[in-house]
Amino acid sequence: MRQYVLPSSYDGESTLTLEKKDSQYFIKVLRLKVGDKIVAISNEGKTYQLTLIDFDRSSCTLSSIPLKSTEEGESTDSLPSFSGQYPNIHLFQCTCKGKKNDGIIRMATEMGVRSITLVQSKYCISKKDKKDNSRYETIIKEAKQQSGSPIPTTFNEVIKIEDLPKIWKESLIFFHQSKVESQKDLKTLLKDFPIDKPIGILIGSEGGLSDAECDMLMRADFNPVLLKTNILRAETASICAISAVHTLLTER
Amino acid sequence: MRQYVLPSSYDGESTLTLEKKDSQYFIKVLRLKVGDKIVAISNEGKTYQLTLIDFDRSSCTLSSIPLKSTEEGESTDSLPSFSGQYPNIHLFQCTCKGKKNDGIIRMATEMGVRSITLVQSKYCISKKDKKDNSRYETIIKEAKQQSGSPIPTTFNEVIKIEDLPKIWKESLIFFHQSKVESQKDLKTLLKDFPIDKPIGILIGSEGGLSDAECDMLMRADFNPVLLKTNILRAETASICAISAVHTLLTER
Repeated sequence: MRQYVLPSSYDGESTLTLEKKDSQYFIKVLRLKVGDKIVAISNEGKTYQLTLIDFDRSSCTLSSIPLKSTEEGESTDSLPSFSGQYPNIHLFQCTCKGKKNDGIIRMATEMGVRSITLVQSKYCISKKDKKDNSRYETIIKEAKQQSGSPIPTTFNEVIKIEDLPKIWKESLIFFHQSKVESQKDLKTLLKDFPIDKPIGILIGSEGGLSDAECDMLMRADFNPVLLKTNILRAETASICAISAVHTLLTER
Repeated sequence: MRQYVLPSSYDGESTLTLEKKDSQYFIKVLRLKVGDKIVAISNEGKTYQLTLIDFDRSSCTLSSIPLKSTEEGESTDSLPSFSGQYPNIHLFQCTCKGKKNDGIIRMATEMGVRSITLVQSKYCISKKDKKDNSRYETIIKEAKQQSGSPIPTTFNEVIKIEDLPKIWKESLIFFHQSKVESQKDLKTLLKDFPIDKPIGILIGSEGGLSDAECDMLMRADFNPVLLKTNILRAETASICAISAVHTLLTER
């Protein structure tokens, strides 16, 4: 269920008036009509039942009643989401430059990835800044709310690529646009793969993976796969690979 | 084959020295070694054979010889791309806000989409600015070069959604996260679909498609499909849908 994130200025008032972008979101995106309801969440994590009571071209007014929990609320959502089973995808993303990481994390969360772990590898251009972690957590929170994702996507601390075999004991696919022998077809790899079994996806940074890293990953029984497309930038590769695995596991 | 886009300051000199981002691209991303070659293209469309003759941590120097055509050139590319058959995907994207269109067009070009047409629909928030067209052309050109895409992606003038049935006489799938009856499975729709047959993909804007638009599209025998995932933002939906169709047509 979609949850609206209240402006930080909101402090529990019984009505609130929204303008511009926020108003447009209710009227043009969610297309609520007078009397329609939506669940909202404040910055402090308090939940409210909002009901649209009036709107015009540039603003809208909603009544607000505190809720004990999100589940208690009602939502008139014109855009219902998929209610079937989600694959159990875990993204291991070699660290890209700041804004690219943001975009990748946002898209992966929207797609219902279970966990996101940033990985330091040889060709990572950027150094990870500790301060980024709280921004990533915020992005994940916003993306979960906006997409109505039922998956509680988590964000893990940065790891070194050589520690991946110790940390991840499940299946893992790494996408590598190179002539690694023994590359399998994505379809063959996922043919009888149970939808709820954890599967890791490792995506290189802007500079890809080194030959030594590929060897190390294969020794750990991880599977190299060539995406059947062009050389993609890291952020395109990431969402494209998640979508490819998601599609093959859900479209059966 | 990947082609390097020369800086606008380059004017046919027999050697050129690159610094910072450009140098890093050759050394860290393409990982060229001394003696390795790459084909380059100038802003005016002239092609050159570049050979790496020296580099250090912050800069690199290349020799440059004019070529009659790209085909004449040699490229030592450590990241070969997929050389199989590409699906014949045509993207119809309801216009989003400027930067979102940029990102969608870039990703779709990387993925080897044949044509990109922006579409005006009821819930488009942004108005299309004529000046944007040349920027979109530039993005497509850059993305083709960077991804080494063999597909000559084209950009078409903006159309109105109601004109789509007149303009596009091939199959078309529109993704709509709503309870439209008669929605088919993506896999069922593409089961026996020839990989080289044109297929259109229509993606709504931030506000989705209106009920009247969906009715109109279905009367034109276009196929509504629910992506089996959360409510995606327009840009995520676009790349995710392209990847899903691409995957089902290439992974058989």
